[in-house]
Amino acid sequence: MHSSISQGDSFLNIISFISYIDQLKGVIRKNGLHDGSRPENTAEHSWHAAISALLLAQYANESIEINKVIQMLLIHDLIEIEAGDTFVYDQKEVSEQEQAEEKAAMNVFGRLPDEQGKALRALWEEFETRETPEAKFAKAMDRFLPLYSNIINKGYSWQPYKVTQSQVKKIGNIIQDGSTKLWGLAEEMLDNAVDEGYLNP
Amino acid sequence: MHSSISQGDSFLNIISFISYIDQLKGVIRKNGLHDGSRPENTAEHSWHAAISALLLAQYANESIEINKVIQMLLIHDLIEIEAGDTFVYDQKEVSEQEQAEEKAAMNVFGRLPDEQGKALRALWEEFETRETPEAKFAKAMDRFLPLYSNIINKGYSWQPYKVTQSQVKKIGNIIQDGSTKLWGLAEEMLDNAVDEGYLNP
Repeated sequence: MHSSISQGDSFLNIISFISYIDQLKGVIRKNGLHDGSRPENTAEHSWHAAISALLLAQYANESIEINKVIQMLLIHDLIEIEAGDTFVYDQKEVSEQEQAEEKAAMNVFGRLPDEQGKALRALWEEFETRETPEAKFAKAMDRFLPLYSNIINKGYSWQPYKVTQSQVKKIGNIIQDGSTKLWGLAEEMLDNAVDEGYLNP
Repeated sequence: MHSSISQGDSFLNIISFISYIDQLKGVIRKNGLHDGSRPENTAEHSWHAAISALLLAQYANESIEINKVIQMLLIHDLIEIEAGDTFVYDQKEVSEQEQAEEKAAMNVFGRLPDEQGKALRALWEEFETRETPEAKFAKAMDRFLPLYSNIINKGYSWQPYKVTQSQVKKIGNIIQDGSTKLWGLAEEMLDNAVDEGYLNP
């Protein structure tokens, strides 16, 4: 715990939580900034995902409540404070990660006042389940952004791991559940990346 | 420009903008992370402000449309990509900054499709003007967070600049326009910071 503020009062509980989640700024991802200067952290990724949803809302496949998408993206990776980030191209790690994430969710959302913790946990589960139009579009943002950063910085997280186009397409594929328009662009970008030599065929 | 994607189409315009705003992750602020390990950047600050608004909405003085507050906080510092961050305790800098920000706003929001750029610029201006309940609450988040991080990390940005309690109170004072509850807590924290010796009286 970073905060020394006492518990037991809803307001102070939330204040303490705001300090606790500051740690998301220290969770480091594999993919890099667009300028390739350093890897991205999960807090700034969450901002980028939420603002991208706001900007691209009109390109969702279905009618969406954009503010629900934005809230979802603000909280979608909070559990990484406890569980760490998972590199999507490591499938073994992904399966172990799911169990760890379940446990992390209890730990993270359990710090909030009961009703608020339950509401945010439900929103996180909706995101993970990817059944509602909002969750599908939120996930499209979450998957598009690391793909896009690799396009701009020429494979910052693809090259060291020798990631192939078919791997990226398999993982990125669910972008189309949220926005076929965005997936169409992503596919063009991926073909171009292979042509330019910073993504393996 | 970070993106090589061509202009002229609204969709590609927005895609290009999403790469452009990645630069906000490289705008460095004076205040530090709660663990004191490094200074914060403006992208992760924007995330922290937006999620804090979501968490603390019930403590706003007035009835607010929380989703408007969240959108406002996601975009409130975009202009820093062009204008840089301002340290609130440097008043001369603040005045010069206002002109620079006006120019930056034209540059930043002008990159978007016309209607969307105007809507986001209007939201930014509403934030800056601080007249609506939403803008007052958004500003309360924006001012509370750096104060709070200095409480947790014992004056990371206060100590090097010998900031005094009266300076912090003068700047933080507008927190009460958005939430008297939050300002009450902030005042207690500031008294405690003086007692503990990491804020000058």
